Amino acid sequence: MTQKNRIPYKIYLEEQEMPQSWYNLRADMVNKPAPLLNPGTGEPLKAEELTPIFCEELVQQELDMEHAYISIPQEIRDFYRMYRPSPLVRAYCLEEKLQTPAKIYYKYEGNNTSGSHKLNSAIAQAYYAKKQGLKGVTTETGAGQWGTALSMACSYFDLDCKVYMVKVSYEQKPFRREVMRTYGASVTPSPSDTTDVGRAILKEHPGTTGSLGCAISEAVEAATRNEGYRYVLGSVLNQVLLHQSVIGLETKAALDKYGIKADMIIGCAGGGSNLGGLIAPFMGEKLRGEADYRIIAVEPASCPSFTRGTYAYDFCDTGMICPLAKMYTLGSSFIPAPNHAGGLRYHGMSPILSQLYDDGLMEARSVRQTDVFEAAEKFARVEGILPAPESSHAICAAIDEAIKCRETGEEKTIVFGLTGTGYFDMTAYEKFHDGQMENYIPTDEEIAASIARLPRLN
Amino acid sequence: MTQKNRIPYKIYLEEQEMPQSWYNLRADMVNKPAPLLNPGTGEPLKAEELTPIFCEELVQQELDMEHAYISIPQEIRDFYRMYRPSPLVRAYCLEEKLQTPAKIYYKYEGNNTSGSHKLNSAIAQAYYAKKQGLKGVTTETGAGQWGTALSMACSYFDLDCKVYMVKVSYEQKPFRREVMRTYGASVTPSPSDTTDVGRAILKEHPGTTGSLGCAISEAVEAATRNEGYRYVLGSVLNQVLLHQSVIGLETKAALDKYGIKADMIIGCAGGGSNLGGLIAPFMGEKLRGEADYRIIAVEPASCPSFTRGTYAYDFCDTGMICPLAKMYTLGSSFIPAPNHAGGLRYHGMSPILSQLYDDGLMEARSVRQTDVFEAAEKFARVEGILPAPESSHAICAAIDEAIKCRETGEEKTIVFGLTGTGYFDMTAYEKFHDGQMENYIPTDEEIAASIARLPRLN
Repeated sequence: MTQKNRIPYKIYLEEQEMPQSWYNLRADMVNKPAPLLNPGTGEPLKAEELTPIFCEELVQQELDMEHAYISIPQEIRDFYRMYRPSPLVRAYCLEEKLQTPAKIYYKYEGNNTSGSHKLNSAIAQAYYAKKQGLKGVTTETGAGQWGTALSMACSYFDLDCKVYMVKVSYEQKPFRREVMRTYGASVTPSPSDTTDVGRAILKEHPGTTGSLGCAISEAVEAATRNEGYRYVLGSVLNQVLLHQSVIGLETKAALDKYGIKADMIIGCAGGGSNLGGLIAPFMGEKLRGEADYRIIAVEPASCPSFTRGTYAYDFCDTGMICPLAKMYTLGSSFIPAPNHAGGLRYHGMSPILSQLYDDGLMEARSVRQTDVFEAAEKFARVEGILPAPESSHAICAAIDEAIKCRETGEEKTIVFGLTGTGYFDMTAYEKFHDGQMENYIPTDEEIAASIARLPRLN
Repeated sequence: MTQKNRIPYKIYLEEQEMPQSWYNLRADMVNKPAPLLNPGTGEPLKAEELTPIFCEELVQQELDMEHAYISIPQEIRDFYRMYRPSPLVRAYCLEEKLQTPAKIYYKYEGNNTSGSHKLNSAIAQAYYAKKQGLKGVTTETGAGQWGTALSMACSYFDLDCKVYMVKVSYEQKPFRREVMRTYGASVTPSPSDTTDVGRAILKEHPGTTGSLGCAISEAVEAATRNEGYRYVLGSVLNQVLLHQSVIGLETKAALDKYGIKADMIIGCAGGGSNLGGLIAPFMGEKLRGEADYRIIAVEPASCPSFTRGTYAYDFCDTGMICPLAKMYTLGSSFIPAPNHAGGLRYHGMSPILSQLYDDGLMEARSVRQTDVFEAAEKFARVEGILPAPESSHAICAAIDEAIKCRETGEEKTIVFGLTGTGYFDMTAYEKFHDGQMENYIPTDEEIAASIARLPRLN
C-alpha cells in the first residue's frame, strides 16, 4: 500500500493552481471544425448574423480558431472558486472491488447544487450577458441540469433567466423545477402560449408533451422578441467546449502535480460539452505530438451518433430553425428512445469532437442502458457517490477497461469524467431495481430514414 | 481584498491533517451527563443490559466518561477519506450580500451521497458491527438522511441493513427509499406486519401512517429477534456525538491552519448529533479555560426542546420502550407539527448538550419555519449550495448575527455548521415559493400537557 500512502484519495488543487485561462483546442487542430452555415444561404455564418441571438463576446469565442488560451475574467474565476477546484479522485475502493491492477481516477463535477459540470459554462455565458448590459437570457432545458446551472449563474449576476422546460419534464420533474425557482428563474412548460411557435404547435398538436426542439425554438424566439435578451445553450457549441476546458485543465494539473501519466481518458458524450472539456489539454498534447493518449467517447446505444451516425451538415435542433453544423449526426429528425440519460439524448455531436473523431484521434463506443445502471450501482456502493445516468456511461466503459487490465495484468492509468450526481434521477434507478428497465436500440432502417432527411447541402 | 487573497474560499485539510482520534467531550465536563436509566428499575443501565441491543464496542463508547481521545480505526479513516475532509468555506459572497464586517465560515457536510453529516457515525457503527461478526443492523428513519447514510455504510462493509421507514415518508419520499435500495438496504414501511409491535399497532390503528416512535420500536424488536443483528441510532446517544466530533476537529484544524479565532459557533439542533460534533473541541477549550466562545444551538419554533422544554428524565422514544435519558425535553408524548425539517422534529435533546446548556455553557434560540426558508433561499442564491431545511436553521441565526455586526460595526468571526443539502426537500421549497408554508408554534398548554406526562422518576 505504498502507492496508497503517496497519492491521496482526492487531489484538490490549491486556489492559485486553478486555471487562469481556458484552452481553445481549435488553435491546435490541423483540420479545423467546419463552420456553422446559414440554413438559408448555405454560406458560413458571420459574426453579425449571430449577435442578434448570442452575446457579442460569446460569438467571438464561437468563431475563434486561432487563440490557444483565452483569459478567464476575474469575476468568473471568483465564482469558480465557490465550487471549484473539483476533486480528482483516486478510485481505490473501485480498484479493490474489481481486483484490477489498473489505476483509476475520476474528475468529479457533481459537488455543486446544479449537480453537474454545466455550471462551468453557465456562469461564463451569464457573465458575458451581464457585461453586455443585457436584462436576461433565455434557454431550454430537458433533463433540467442545464436549466438549473443557468438559474444559479443568473441569480449570481442578477440577470433574468427564462427557461423553457420540455412539458413532460416540467410535469415529471417538479423538483428540478423548484430548484430553478429557488434561484429566481421563471420556468415555462414548453410548448407554451408565450411564443408564436409555441402557440402554433399547441394549435396543431393540442395534447403534446413537448420536445427539446420545440423548447429551443421557443427560447430563441423569446430571446429575439424581448429587448435586452439573448439565447444561451449548454452544449454542442465551440464556446461551451472552451469554457468546459476548465475540467481538463484542472485534471491535467492534478495529475502533473503527482507525476501521474494517464493512458486513457474516458468521457460520456451527448452533445459533447463534458467530453470536449475533459479531453481538451490531453488532445492538445496529442495534436502537438507531445504525448499520446487513448481517448474514448461513450454514448448510449439508444442514441449512437458517433458509432452509427454520419458526418454531415445538419440542423442543431429538431425544429430546424438553428444554424447548420457539420457533425456526426443521426439526423435532426431522429427521435431517441426515452432512455434515462436525458443529457445524452441528442441527435448530433459537437463539431470539434466530430472533426477529431473523423480524423481518427479518438475512439467511440456505445453502451446499453441496463449495463450502464449496473455499473452505476456497483460504483455507488464502493465509491459512495450516486452517479447521474449520463456520467455512468463513462463509469461503464472505465470498469470494462479496468477488467481488461485484470485479464492482461497491465497497470494502465484510466481517467474518466464523473459529470454529476443522480439525485434527481431516482425514478430511473427505481425502474432498474424493479427489473423494468428496457434497452432500446434503433434499427438500421430507423437511422437510415432520418439520415435520408438531412438537409440538401451535403 | 487583501483578506480575500489570504484565506481561500474553501479550506481543505490535507489527508495527513485529518483527525486520527475522536474527541470525547465528556472527559472534560465537570458535570457529567446523567446516565441512562433502566425504565423498569430506575437504576443506571449497565453495559450488559445494553449489549443485547447495541454492539459491544459502541456500548463501551456510550458509557465512557473518562478517555478524552478515542482512536479512529484505520478502516473508518479509510472510508472517511472517500468523502472527507469536508471543506470549511469562507462565505465571501454571503458577507458581501449582507454588507457585514463579520467574517462568516461554514463547515459543509453535504458533499456525500447521503447528503449530510450522518455518514460520520453510520460508518463507525457499521464498522463495529462488522468487527463483532454480526450479520447486520436495524434502524428507523424518518426524513431518510440517517437511513441513507447507514445503507451506504453497510454496503461498504457488506452488512445487511434493515431500515424501518415511517410509512408516510416511505410513500412521500420514494427517491430517498430508492437511494437506500441502491445501496442494498431493505426498506420496510412502518408500521409493518414483520414485527409484533407493528402488527399490534396495525390492528389497533388500521389506517395509520406511522411515527418515528413506532419505527424505533419495530427496529429494536427486529434487532433483538434476529440472530446476529443489533440496533443502531443516528443521534442523541453519546457515541454518536463522539463520532461526530470529527466535524469539529476538522473545523478547528482548518481555522488553526490559517490562524483564525472564532467568536461564535452556531449549529442546528434536533437530537444534537451535528451540534455536539461541531462544538466538541471548542467547548473542550472552554471547559478547560483555554478559550471562550459563544455557542448557539438553533432549533425550530415548532419543536423547541431547549428553549421551552424541561430538564428531566424521559423516554428517548415515543413508544416508551427505550432507556430513560436525562435531557431537555418536551415530553415523549409531544407530537411536533409536521414542519419540513424532519431531522429536527425530536422531543428531546442529547444528554451531553442538555447538561452543558443547563450549566450555562451554551445558548439556544428557536426560529420560525418561514424565516428559515427565507434564509435558505438567500444563502442558496449567493453561496451556490441549496441547503437542507435542518441546516438552514443555523444559516438563519448566522445571518441574524452577521446583520447585528453590520449594525455595531464589529468584525466578529462566525462559524456555523451546514449539515447537508436539500435536494430531497423540494416539496418544502415548493410550498415556500407558493406562499403556502405555515408556522406552527405550540401553545404553553400543549407543552405543559406533554411534560405533565413525563415518567414518575423525576
